Amino acid sequence: MQLATDRERAPQPCTLAERFAQIRAQSVRLVEPLSDADATIQSMPDASPAKWHLAHTTWFFETFVLRDHMSGYRLFDADWPFLFNSYYEAEGPRHARPSRGMLSRPALDAVMAYRAYVDAAMYGLLEQGRDPSGRVAQLVELGLNHEQQHQELLLTDIKHALAQNPLGPTYASGCQESEALAVLNAWHGHPGGIAIVGHDGTGFAFDNEGPAHRVLVEPFALSAALVTNREWQAFIDDGGYHDPGPWLSDGWAWVNENAIEAPMYWRGEEAFTLGGWKERHPDAPVGHISFYEADAFATWAGARLPTEFEWETIAGDHDPAGGNQLDADTRLGSVNPTGAPGLFGDCWQWTRSAYLPYPHYQPAEGAVGEYNGKFMSGQCVLKGASCATPRGHSRRTYRNFFHPHQRWQFTGLRLAKDS
Amino acid sequence: MQLATDRERAPQPCTLAERFAQIRAQSVRLVEPLSDADATIQSMPDASPAKWHLAHTTWFFETFVLRDHMSGYRLFDADWPFLFNSYYEAEGPRHARPSRGMLSRPALDAVMAYRAYVDAAMYGLLEQGRDPSGRVAQLVELGLNHEQQHQELLLTDIKHALAQNPLGPTYASGCQESEALAVLNAWHGHPGGIAIVGHDGTGFAFDNEGPAHRVLVEPFALSAALVTNREWQAFIDDGGYHDPGPWLSDGWAWVNENAIEAPMYWRGEEAFTLGGWKERHPDAPVGHISFYEADAFATWAGARLPTEFEWETIAGDHDPAGGNQLDADTRLGSVNPTGAPGLFGDCWQWTRSAYLPYPHYQPAEGAVGEYNGKFMSGQCVLKGASCATPRGHSRRTYRNFFHPHQRWQFTGLRLAKDS
Amino acid sequence: MQLATDRERAPQPCTLAERFAQIRAQSVRLVEPLSDADATIQSMPDASPAKWHLAHTTWFFETFVLRDHMSGYRLFDADWPFLFNSYYEAEGPRHARPSRGMLSRPALDAVMAYRAYVDAAMYGLLEQGRDPSGRVAQLVELGLNHEQQHQELLLTDIKHALAQNPLGPTYASGCQESEALAVLNAWHGHPGGIAIVGHDGTGFAFDNEGPAHRVLVEPFALSAALVTNREWQAFIDDGGYHDPGPWLSDGWAWVNENAIEAPMYWRGEEAFTLGGWKERHPDAPVGHISFYEADAFATWAGARLPTEFEWETIAGDHDPAGGNQLDADTRLGSVNPTGAPGLFGDCWQWTRSAYLPYPHYQPAEGAVGEYNGKFMSGQCVLKGASCATPRGHSRRTYRNFFHPHQRWQFTGLRLAKDS
Amino acid sequence: MQLATDRERAPQPCTLAERFAQIRAQSVRLVEPLSDADATIQSMPDASPAKWHLAHTTWFFETFVLRDHMSGYRLFDADWPFLFNSYYEAEGPRHARPSRGMLSRPALDAVMAYRAYVDAAMYGLLEQGRDPSGRVAQLVELGLNHEQQHQELLLTDIKHALAQNPLGPTYASGCQESEALAVLNAWHGHPGGIAIVGHDGTGFAFDNEGPAHRVLVEPFALSAALVTNREWQAFIDDGGYHDPGPWLSDGWAWVNENAIEAPMYWRGEEAFTLGGWKERHPDAPVGHISFYEADAFATWAGARLPTEFEWETIAGDHDPAGGNQLDADTRLGSVNPTGAPGLFGDCWQWTRSAYLPYPHYQPAEGAVGEYNGKFMSGQCVLKGASCATPRGHSRRTYRNFFHPHQRWQFTGLRLAKDS
Ligand SMILES: [Fe+3]
Ligand SMILES: [Fe+3]
Ligand SMILES: [Fe+3]
Ligand SMILES: [Fe+3]
Repeated sequence: MQLATDRERAPQPCTLAERFAQIRAQSVRLVEPLSDADATIQSMPDASPAKWHLAHTTWFFETFVLRDHMSGYRLFDADWPFLFNSYYEAEGPRHARPSRGMLSRPALDAVMAYRAYVDAAMYGLLEQGRDPSGRVAQLVELGLNHEQQHQELLLTDIKHALAQNPLGPTYASGCQESEALAVLNAWHGHPGGIAIVGHDGTGFAFDNEGPAHRVLVEPFALSAALVTNREWQAFIDDGGYHDPGPWLSDGWAWVNENAIEAPMYWRGEEAFTLGGWKERHPDAPVGHISFYEADAFATWAGARLPTEFEWETIAGDHDPAGGNQLDADTRLGSVNPTGAPGLFGDCWQWTRSAYLPYPHYQPAEGAVGEYNGKFMSGQCVLKGASCATPRGHSRRTYRNFFHPHQRWQFTGLRLAKDS
Repeated sequence: MQLATDRERAPQPCTLAERFAQIRAQSVRLVEPLSDADATIQSMPDASPAKWHLAHTTWFFETFVLRDHMSGYRLFDADWPFLFNSYYEAEGPRHARPSRGMLSRPALDAVMAYRAYVDAAMYGLLEQGRDPSGRVAQLVELGLNHEQQHQELLLTDIKHALAQNPLGPTYASGCQESEALAVLNAWHGHPGGIAIVGHDGTGFAFDNEGPAHRVLVEPFALSAALVTNREWQAFIDDGGYHDPGPWLSDGWAWVNENAIEAPMYWRGEEAFTLGGWKERHPDAPVGHISFYEADAFATWAGARLPTEFEWETIAGDHDPAGGNQLDADTRLGSVNPTGAPGLFGDCWQWTRSAYLPYPHYQPAEGAVGEYNGKFMSGQCVLKGASCATPRGHSRRTYRNFFHPHQRWQFTGLRLAKDS
Repeated sequence: MQLATDRERAPQPCTLAERFAQIRAQSVRLVEPLSDADATIQSMPDASPAKWHLAHTTWFFETFVLRDHMSGYRLFDADWPFLFNSYYEAEGPRHARPSRGMLSRPALDAVMAYRAYVDAAMYGLLEQGRDPSGRVAQLVELGLNHEQQHQELLLTDIKHALAQNPLGPTYASGCQESEALAVLNAWHGHPGGIAIVGHDGTGFAFDNEGPAHRVLVEPFALSAALVTNREWQAFIDDGGYHDPGPWLSDGWAWVNENAIEAPMYWRGEEAFTLGGWKERHPDAPVGHISFYEADAFATWAGARLPTEFEWETIAGDHDPAGGNQLDADTRLGSVNPTGAPGLFGDCWQWTRSAYLPYPHYQPAEGAVGEYNGKFMSGQCVLKGASCATPRGHSRRTYRNFFHPHQRWQFTGLRLAKDS
Repeated sequence: MQLATDRERAPQPCTLAERFAQIRAQSVRLVEPLSDADATIQSMPDASPAKWHLAHTTWFFETFVLRDHMSGYRLFDADWPFLFNSYYEAEGPRHARPSRGMLSRPALDAVMAYRAYVDAAMYGLLEQGRDPSGRVAQLVELGLNHEQQHQELLLTDIKHALAQNPLGPTYASGCQESEALAVLNAWHGHPGGIAIVGHDGTGFAFDNEGPAHRVLVEPFALSAALVTNREWQAFIDDGGYHDPGPWLSDGWAWVNENAIEAPMYWRGEEAFTLGGWKERHPDAPVGHISFYEADAFATWAGARLPTEFEWETIAGDHDPAGGNQLDADTRLGSVNPTGAPGLFGDCWQWTRSAYLPYPHYQPAEGAVGEYNGKFMSGQCVLKGASCATPRGHSRRTYRNFFHPHQRWQFTGLRLAKDS
């Protein structure tokens, strides 16, 4: 049975220290194919250098765990928090986001030394065995989930950076393309009613996932498959990018201002991947589309996007650790949507839900409270997981969010309809 | 009793032709204080010239009623639809929105002649008595509601235009300021449960108000009063615009990029009104605030914004035609929030709800189907009515919507809290 | 003989008061075809509303003559200097240039009352007979020349504003198009040597025209005719706008960023004129071209632009009051290049000279010293006069100047070559 | 005597191959302190990555010498000309300038291999002894002068890039600061008359330096010293950046739009140098100022900027290889203005001359003809040389040019006055 198989494939380490070691090692593995220069460049303000991801995730542990909870801890370098704080206002001023690509120093080696220094201190703290289920453990867990998020961003950001290079360099090569699986033409139906959504507090979750609460859902159906490249090509061939009919007003303006003609990274019959320019498989899920494109496609197809609650209601029957996600041994050049079954994996899936607070939502106290709540305007919720999401990171209640025009993530769509 | 009083004050005309006459006359009254030049200028892309509003609302009747449903109708001028179509893609290309202020021709007189020509044809059509409850009547009703929306915009747009003039000219003068009423320190409580929201199809409503459907509401309370200038001053005095704490991330960026220090139109102890620069009444409702400001204020105050559903649930007990709204005899220079009781009037009220389609929502067929649905991204719902809303125009189910940074409308806020 | 004829056609009034009356009257005549709304709109930051020109030229007299030199003079309105100061830093803060189009008030009538008020005071001052050749007379003369400059700008600005209107309205109609004259295929040669250029102080001149000084000129020739529409069409047909070869680097960037394909106001076989859209005459001088275009055309044609000194050296043999310029009785709808002989008229002519100070140049003292000198960077000198220049305003030493990309003036070119 | 000393200090190699070896080696030396990442980043569109400079100068030899003049030469990599062409339209499409910082690949090592490959071919060509004084030698000479220009740019660009890093890293350290020399309060006078300026064709010169021609110069004097940091501080203390009086209109707008308060790289009492943040020496020449600043300072000081012709006339008495310029053994961290005597060195010196073609100027034929002429609009001429100019590169007739707002070069000023 699939659920068992998936779980066998991704055994969870037992202790927090083991999890720490495993997740921190994965970040390092992701930059192995990169030179110091590769890891330094920033291709747009939305993206960050790979080196910055390595340092920022380390800063998170240094600041919120070691500085605040380990007596006698000395900062690796007192000037670095200014560089590697992302957006925490309560942590003071910080380097401007669009200038992260100016940081040729510290070099990748120095950042690796930073990681080693912080890791050593972290192991010391974790092995003291103090506070195994208390505040420190919570913060370490938060830091690990934070690091997994940045692992996905590191992959999508380096993909974007390499795509700007006219030479079309590969991030990691030598790996065979997996076959796209057969497309399912099936729907998951739901009769409607009161459902419980949101995280109930058992195990780790981000603050934005809770509290668990009741919602009313009308009868609906959710597609068993993601929309494919072949279906997207049909949309293009039908003039999808040239007819305002199915588009939201903002979406139509976005299409015209940016002269959008296809998903990001499409060029002729090819698409840019972490393994370089490759021919697209028609039955693989389409990726790198904006919310505007997803919504227009759904309207064109006579369907609609699901709400986040509809998606979550169906997801109870699916293994969050299933499907095409990132494992410790995934060949990095072939991180790309292929079309595995289940609701999780391949691509994050746009919903029609705006990213808003749940009833009785309260951000965490202190600087870490800036983690999620302050972004609750102007963004859309995505559900599921992608081929670049570390397996085990996502959940039924997970709420990913991006602005409606952004599409450098592995973003796709799954249709819904009323029934 | 107040409800009765309000209804006496705003008697509804009996026939569609009478309603047509009354609403069309109100538009004309609104431009009486304006010169041709006043009516021509456009102070920002969001705003339109007064003359353009007069012509555009006329174009709506000419196009969707007369051209489509009156045999033998001849356009007043075949070149004008290009000028006065606002955003209907299905009606073909149109004059660029930011260039509406370039239209010194046609002159205001010519636009008045256009109105007379179209009105004459409309009376002809309406008096034929054909199709009293059919498609034409629906379109006329839509056109009248559309015209009322533009009446409010005309007032807020001319206010914005005059405010750009260093001379601080008045739109209409000679009218005494009404006193702000006593501030209510009271809350409307609600026990939570299943509520029916949205329009059930009885009487006119915009398509975005339906279908009626069930929602689950948790226990909450809604303030009986709008937030006042005095309360807003306390927020400012507490450093509200200089502390990132209560702000959404997008809001904080907006504050800093635009050097926002106070609501729009505030200068020292004064505010710009349609009657010119006037001292602010501390107990009058604060107006001209963005969603970002409303949300930050609510957080600072230890409360939150209501959802549109919470607001609508309470509104069943309130007269939509009550409060401080625009009447046929309102003195135009004193259109300003004063603080009348009830949920409707003074200021449109930001909710925390994103403007999204209701379950089973279907836009209308044809060009008029572009009326509401295509704007369902990136905007927030406002409920209630303002001092510039024609009385009788709003409803419990009415969904006004603007982008979170916009504040040239009469926008305020009413706090909510969990209970 | 032509020179005599021209001078008969434009008799100069005898007294300063007569000149004042005549020039002030011409400004009023230029706005006669305009409504208040026409006179209020501003089509781009470079342009100003017609009403503003009327008021600003009046402010110049009020400020530098009446306020400073007439005891007991009371300002017409103490708030207006803020509105109608253009750029004189020494006169204090002022209304932002791009917002001139927001001034629906004061209305055109009020501006006319301002003119009458100031004119009455001016006549009082002029008739006192005091200081006939002294400081006041100098300032009045400066003010009159300033007003003539604004007359030309008023025409080019209203042309630009009306051109933005999809209805293509006429500024003044009912006038027949004059025939373009035969094109001269001849050159004015010069043997080179030491020449005296610049104004020697006899009669009025702007400060930037002096001092007179010697320059060394190499042998050259200057075309007797302006480049025509027919010749420009040949440039287009030869791919002139699509081949970087003849273009300056900045010019080529300007062409591509603005998608330039033809002179301003060209549309098919027509051009927009003050009389509306008209068929172009192939033998009329081309107008509304930028310096970049002029330079590229000259290179393409195997020639070059003249220096301002070369042009001035030839101009000693030509009547500055000759050619197609603006007279008190010119029919306003036919102000357009037609191709009259002589170096003056039809179009201002781009030179390759940067607008820089002459040796020993000193700006005037006080606020009026900001008139010319502070603009001496980044602009190019134009010589001659245009069809919109008030006859009698220009001189051999006159130095007009605009930025290299600007082309809403009547700008053309006259080729030069080494010999 | 000084001239002899200077020449002894910078002996010229005898053969073209020796010069080639020496200049090519200097470029390599300049990147020795840099990591691959340092050499990859681009801090603004005006600047280029160090790696790009290394490759672009190599592309110049590969393209215009080897490809065009060495039979059988095979390109190192056929994809690279697209990356490393700067602006030669005749050489086809090219990588967008602002995206040069995206080129993490090819790595610095690969670019070094490119240099070695091309150098080997070049030595083969040069040693064939063919065409020692012909077209190839001319192109090699052009390529070497081109490479020297890029050496200076490499230094100013890496200085700019490192200055963006909050850590304030040094480019090269361990070197003592040289003392600023005594400031000369003396003037070089000139009686005026006919002077010959421009290059007469003996020895190498860029095309924009010729032809030699006569100019008329009025009596003037040129300061023997550059303006110093101490003098600039007096300008600041006198409110220089807050009084529009001495500024050109464009300059004043630039000051306000960019909130300019001091020369580039000033912070408190320090300035950023290639050796990191250092205290400023008050008697050292001020550097990193724009033309606008230079012009305003000169006006404030009651003087003016010289014309390029005045400067050149005085320069005949000065050794172009003298002063503070870049030698093969200059310690790289101390490349900074110190204040050596003579007209050359320390800082390039803004003149009031616009960068325009000389009489009878003809660009070279073919793609290399795009070298200078097409930039002849909107820029200002600078004369002399800077501390980053390879000694031997500049000449009396040398015309450097930048836009009036640019100041990331070592730019300073030398006053002039009429006499
Ligand atoms: Fe983070
Ligand atoms: Fe409308
Ligand atoms: Fe003026
Ligand atoms: Fe180059």
